[in-house]
Amino acid sequence: MLEKIKTPKDVKKLSIAQLQELAEDIRKRIIQVTAKTGGHVAPSLGATDIAIALLKMFDPLEDRIVWDVGHQSYAYKILTERNEQFDTLRQFNGLSGFNNIFESKYDAYGVGHASTSISAALGIAVAKEMKNEKCHSIAVIGDGALTGGMAFEALNHAGHLQKDMIVILNDNNFSISKNVGALQAHLTNMLVSRPYNATKNLIWDFVQHLPSRIRRRVILSARTLEENMINTLAPNIIFEDLGFKYLGPIDGHDIPRMIRIFHKIKTNLTGPIFVHIVTQKGKGYEYAEDDAARFHGLGPYEIKTGKSKKKKAETYSKVFGNTLCKIAEKNKDIVAITAAMTDGTGLVEYAEKFPERFFDVAIAEQHAVTFAGGLAVQGIKPFVAIYSTFLQRALDQVIHDIALQKLPVVFCLDRAGLVGDDGATHHGVFDLSYLNVVPGLIILIPANAEELSAMLKFSAKYKDGPIVIRYPRGCATYLNDKIEPIEIGKSVIVQEGKDIAIIGVGKAMEDAEIIFQELKNKLPDINPYLINPRFLKPLDITLFNNLEKKVHTIITIEDNALIGGFGSMLKSHFSNSAVKIHSYGIPDEFIEHGSVDQLKNMIGISAKQITKEIISILK
Amino acid sequence: MLEKIKTPKDVKKLSIAQLQELAEDIRKRIIQVTAKTGGHVAPSLGATDIAIALLKMFDPLEDRIVWDVGHQSYAYKILTERNEQFDTLRQFNGLSGFNNIFESKYDAYGVGHASTSISAALGIAVAKEMKNEKCHSIAVIGDGALTGGMAFEALNHAGHLQKDMIVILNDNNFSISKNVGALQAHLTNMLVSRPYNATKNLIWDFVQHLPSRIRRRVILSARTLEENMINTLAPNIIFEDLGFKYLGPIDGHDIPRMIRIFHKIKTNLTGPIFVHIVTQKGKGYEYAEDDAARFHGLGPYEIKTGKSKKKKAETYSKVFGNTLCKIAEKNKDIVAITAAMTDGTGLVEYAEKFPERFFDVAIAEQHAVTFAGGLAVQGIKPFVAIYSTFLQRALDQVIHDIALQKLPVVFCLDRAGLVGDDGATHHGVFDLSYLNVVPGLIILIPANAEELSAMLKFSAKYKDGPIVIRYPRGCATYLNDKIEPIEIGKSVIVQEGKDIAIIGVGKAMEDAEIIFQELKNKLPDINPYLINPRFLKPLDITLFNNLEKKVHTIITIEDNALIGGFGSMLKSHFSNSAVKIHSYGIPDEFIEHGSVDQLKNMIGISAKQITKEIISILK
Repeated sequence: MLEKIKTPKDVKKLSIAQLQELAEDIRKRIIQVTAKTGGHVAPSLGATDIAIALLKMFDPLEDRIVWDVGHQSYAYKILTERNEQFDTLRQFNGLSGFNNIFESKYDAYGVGHASTSISAALGIAVAKEMKNEKCHSIAVIGDGALTGGMAFEALNHAGHLQKDMIVILNDNNFSISKNVGALQAHLTNMLVSRPYNATKNLIWDFVQHLPSRIRRRVILSARTLEENMINTLAPNIIFEDLGFKYLGPIDGHDIPRMIRIFHKIKTNLTGPIFVHIVTQKGKGYEYAEDDAARFHGLGPYEIKTGKSKKKKAETYSKVFGNTLCKIAEKNKDIVAITAAMTDGTGLVEYAEKFPERFFDVAIAEQHAVTFAGGLAVQGIKPFVAIYSTFLQRALDQVIHDIALQKLPVVFCLDRAGLVGDDGATHHGVFDLSYLNVVPGLIILIPANAEELSAMLKFSAKYKDGPIVIRYPRGCATYLNDKIEPIEIGKSVIVQEGKDIAIIGVGKAMEDAEIIFQELKNKLPDINPYLINPRFLKPLDITLFNNLEKKVHTIITIEDNALIGGFGSMLKSHFSNSAVKIHSYGIPDEFIEHGSVDQLKNMIGISAKQITKEIISILK
Repeated sequence: MLEKIKTPKDVKKLSIAQLQELAEDIRKRIIQVTAKTGGHVAPSLGATDIAIALLKMFDPLEDRIVWDVGHQSYAYKILTERNEQFDTLRQFNGLSGFNNIFESKYDAYGVGHASTSISAALGIAVAKEMKNEKCHSIAVIGDGALTGGMAFEALNHAGHLQKDMIVILNDNNFSISKNVGALQAHLTNMLVSRPYNATKNLIWDFVQHLPSRIRRRVILSARTLEENMINTLAPNIIFEDLGFKYLGPIDGHDIPRMIRIFHKIKTNLTGPIFVHIVTQKGKGYEYAEDDAARFHGLGPYEIKTGKSKKKKAETYSKVFGNTLCKIAEKNKDIVAITAAMTDGTGLVEYAEKFPERFFDVAIAEQHAVTFAGGLAVQGIKPFVAIYSTFLQRALDQVIHDIALQKLPVVFCLDRAGLVGDDGATHHGVFDLSYLNVVPGLIILIPANAEELSAMLKFSAKYKDGPIVIRYPRGCATYLNDKIEPIEIGKSVIVQEGKDIAIIGVGKAMEDAEIIFQELKNKLPDINPYLINPRFLKPLDITLFNNLEKKVHTIITIEDNALIGGFGSMLKSHFSNSAVKIHSYGIPDEFIEHGSVDQLKNMIGISAKQITKEIISILK
């Protein structure tokens, strides 16, 4: 059936049976492609029927659909003129893993981070009204994303404004193992205990026992009754308190039923409407249904067995988790906090070993930080594990609730630097710049697994203020050697030298070492320093002041933005000195998705490219 | 009665009548001091009885009370060993206008920005449990602060954890003119329409008609009944959906009633408890009751008349509001957005003139930004007016929802630089640093009123991406002269010169001009350039490259942090040049409260201090 869909308009022509066949085709397509490319398999399989029902009833160009996060929108992408390109998903120069207004006119708003869709859809609804353009503005948001504070801010505002808009809650809580948050418990409770379900079941039980010749007619009447009931029997729940009309819960794999609800909304209802749709994460692919957590987002896998093709490597996340377990065994005041990223941040084992000292606060980075502050002000030692890109959500809390009070919270920023496949929304390339300005913060950047461990142990003992440790996504590099102990503001001179110094910040030490070797090979007269700075803040002033007397050129390499990063800090420090500084890092633009090597090549910061440039500078 | 209170323990000894007398004394004291110092008068008058009831029933050292924002905590400060110092409120080296853990052991957590108290109190509750310390952890939060997304994140987590904690909602919505948000409407609705009130009134009407000799006994029984009723008759409201036990609404000026409720909580209730207390903002001072909006926060005033002592000057906020009115009259696509700061950002007149194109989204900066993004993606032109310090809350949205999509949203950052009395939590001294790293952002810094106007007009026409305009608190400086038109990335050479250039960033142009004149007077051989850079981003590369050939020294002056600010950017640019750069700005520490001049003196960046240093550099 999928081959019949050239544009989303073609979806409208299909019968219910054909739509159901289409859903099967799309699921096959998603599995076929993601098995090769990796991606957010389970969320997109779960939302396939929603995408079909939406496109059957709405026009994705006149109406505007904002998919929260965007990792549930693969079916939508396939149906909106991107089926052919779908093989390039998350590949360099290929389709993005999220929605992107520059990729397709069908993408109403760019997404990637959670909880933004209601705000954007409300803005769209207001704009369309101002311009007298008829439009259904629709946000599709998962139950996880609904826990983010800004989703609540948007609901509060939308309920107040009473503009026409539709919020679709894609609630797949039933297929993930753990509830997080009171709101989740409330939603779940609604599904299992409300009078509506009891009544509904009574009716359908009754219908099943009717003779088949009249059953069909009764079913049709019963359906109408059910749809009406949904509205009248709904309890006074949170979304109605916030000014929304609440419809649901509705089976998110029952395409005809969703179509009837959407029809009802289009023809009968105005103001803000909240549709509670229940889906199964991973729906239609048994391995994804059974292990929705792993299939939430993963690399290439074998379709027949569901097994991941790449072995799970020893990542920095794993090093973090292992080390924290060791620290927590000895120190009973250690607490770990994550914002819905237990697995991603490497805390699964920790959470099992220390359930009383582990807090998953849901997608709520702001609260995560200030909650840690409350713990710390009472003498507890919190480690807050957040992806670099998501800490952008909590800058104010880091400044106002932690640093201002000198509270000894440790921020463990995973996925710092270029992250690869997830692209522009997820690169952690701004953290050094926006954190460096925070007074009293210590900022540590490990260059290898041993350093990360040592820095965590150092931080566990440090009591005088907050610490940030930022480390990259992916395989940890092992030095397999003893490292110098961590001392505040002290760098490591890996190789003494003269004339020129190569400084690799964190992961960039790998390239720095290659460049260092290449320079020694190609320019035997040059004897460069090789330096691992370890700290952005405080900067190792002693070392750099000594260096000023010994070198004429310093090369800095980092995977942070050049603006405000390590190189920029060093340039400020040496501004009135004769030392020349050449910095390599992320230029002042958003970087797309692709492998980290592809991206580094694209922006000209591969070891090879930098070596070449240094040689030409030195000549 | 106040003179009897040496420590908060003394509050516990007082009878109800004495506590009521104490409340009167405290209100007088607050009025007497704030009439001289200015401050948050109405919120603190409103919360006086809550503070007394809390200190009667709880121990502020064993128990921990977190006052959200802190601007409602003057009575608490007076009662917790700070009555003598209270005359120094918001003065240099005096008491802070907010709570501060370094100021007093009675302040459980530092505050200033809204919506943080529940997160902090939850952290405290968990820490106390871990340490086996008995403690009531209490957050007191206003209805305004409750609209901030992180308050919801914290409620969601607290409801899930089910730890013992108390959230007190200080709901004074009845005394401000305007409801914002659906949650507000819901709270209001509860107060006026719920069955509880009807029943309560019936009982009290009945009691009033009893013969006086038995009335007293019946009243006592009725009170008990009423307290029990509160729990049982409460409807299934939002806070119960989130796992809290809800008590209320309770009259927040009825001290004995609050004491009974707190007693009940201490003796009978566990888990998270939500107490809904209704207060009148400005209570006990007629002018503050009548004009709670103005008395929310104001400068010195005359006690007898309530009139402000200083005339309202023409501020940059006013220039912004006036200009935006003019722009919006001609351009129907202009929209203004504020996060609960209509008055503060100068938008009162705009809101009256263009109610359909004005959006107060409540204390919800994250939503404000992404809502603007939704508008912009549909061709509407939003101006988002937010204080610099509060935009720290929405950095991720600026990056992810606006800049990444090149949406033409204009951010008008009021209160940039040092703000004076409000101190460390409120200085807008980080914005240039954390915004400069955002790709594609244009950052404008007006040096006078005419420039602010021109920049706003320029921004209204600009369609290719987001713009930030940041301007200071307080009186606008008028150039009273024609200014050069705004061109992207183009500075203004105010005075041509040679050898040395003085660059004043935004408001710092005032000092730069003084320094320029002083240098001319004191070193007649020197002929300095005077430059107004206007743009941080893009930097005026052409000008600075020309300058490199003409001067040996550049002086930059700004009211942003030195790290990552304008000076730092220029140092990076000139790192491989012979030009020496000396930058003046905010050092790498948190700056306390005081007048802006006192603070500049303290950190050594007054015009006089800088002039002296330049002269010594040049000699």
